[in-house]
Amino acid sequence: MAIKLYDLAGAEADRRFSPNCWRTRLALAHKGLPVETVPWRFTEKEAIAFSSQGRVPVLVDGATTVADSWAIAEYLEQAYPDRPSLFGGATGVALARFVNNWADTVLHPGVARLIIVDVHARLHDKDRDYFRTSREQRFGKTLEAVSADRETQVVPFRLSLQPLRATLEVQAYLGGAAPNYADYIVFGAFQWARTTSPFPILTADDPIAAWRGRLLDAFGGLARAAPGYAA
Amino acid sequence: MAIKLYDLAGAEADRRFSPNCWRTRLALAHKGLPVETVPWRFTEKEAIAFSSQGRVPVLVDGATTVADSWAIAEYLEQAYPDRPSLFGGATGVALARFVNNWADTVLHPGVARLIIVDVHARLHDKDRDYFRTSREQRFGKTLEAVSADRETQVVPFRLSLQPLRATLEVQAYLGGAAPNYADYIVFGAFQWARTTSPFPILTADDPIAAWRGRLLDAFGGLARAAPGYAA
Repeated sequence: MAIKLYDLAGAEADRRFSPNCWRTRLALAHKGLPVETVPWRFTEKEAIAFSSQGRVPVLVDGATTVADSWAIAEYLEQAYPDRPSLFGGATGVALARFVNNWADTVLHPGVARLIIVDVHARLHDKDRDYFRTSREQRFGKTLEAVSADRETQVVPFRLSLQPLRATLEVQAYLGGAAPNYADYIVFGAFQWARTTSPFPILTADDPIAAWRGRLLDAFGGLARAAPGYAA
Repeated sequence: MAIKLYDLAGAEADRRFSPNCWRTRLALAHKGLPVETVPWRFTEKEAIAFSSQGRVPVLVDGATTVADSWAIAEYLEQAYPDRPSLFGGATGVALARFVNNWADTVLHPGVARLIIVDVHARLHDKDRDYFRTSREQRFGKTLEAVSADRETQVVPFRLSLQPLRATLEVQAYLGGAAPNYADYIVFGAFQWARTTSPFPILTADDPIAAWRGRLLDAFGGLARAAPGYAA
């Protein structure tokens, strides 16, 4: 039985835009594991209640259920040790956790401010009120106000990517010569933007854009084939 | 012949405060390699002219001269492969580079703004004009103006450490269960502050402070024994 992944979807069932679900999609592809994705919307809490929490990704592998992208990556690495490694050993796990925390606390908030109105526009009708209310509470202002000055906000956002940019100026991937889970962590945020928003969060000449292009092409163009905007 | 390290010093020859030199000091200790440090001041360019550049750390190991803390770490890993690994393999090198770039572009500028007046006060007389002129040009204001509102600036500084803090909340070191070069990269910045400034850049209950304490105690208390301020 194929692995099943509950995967956040927009108005169209094939618009998959969750950055954390994309981490898992690429992790599964890295391991060469087929997956059956199940489109899921924010308000379908009952559909994943069996996972004892309310967010995706949720992965079901036979009798095992795992929620949370980091926990899923660790699970896949342990459960499929003979497949290509996601982390490259214990040190790779430890340092990927730093990358994960950088993505969660710096990259995701930065991207969110730039694309949040577009994310809202892509949602299924039944998710819109939930999303607006919960996000406006988090930001303390309307979604429109959050993104209103994004032409200005994109400048410090791009500066905040300097640790990533400086690294990709000297090596092809965060993981080194080939991509690993650290790359998928960070790529998820760019795929979140690409699948929801036409706003250019990177300039075309950014080394990060070149790296994003390589990951869009990876695994037979898995990420590039997803409905989205030119990037 | 022991390895020789040109190491930035203040007014007193034993006040060693360069964050990048501390990276190298701990890397040498990790490898169990004895070192003879040579106190060096910013304006003693001729003393390290043999390295074809003008900054420390400069390491001399027999016939080999290596400048730049990252290059030195890579050199030590290659030259002493039978000693404890600094990186834990190729993935560890690749991800440590991201940590290195985060330290250089986020952590160091953040620490510098908080302690720069104190660094200046610790310098040898002959370095003071050079340091003031070059740093005031970089910041576009006087050293005193840079640090004037540090009680305010320390708040966003501490927030900028969230990727580090979140990581150290779940594992003892960046490198995992034991410290590796990624830890020494980041620790250098805190030792820079500790050896020059009484200003508390961390709160006592910060998990980062506990990690700093463990590294101050590492290698027989090498870093804690250095002249500095309570931290």
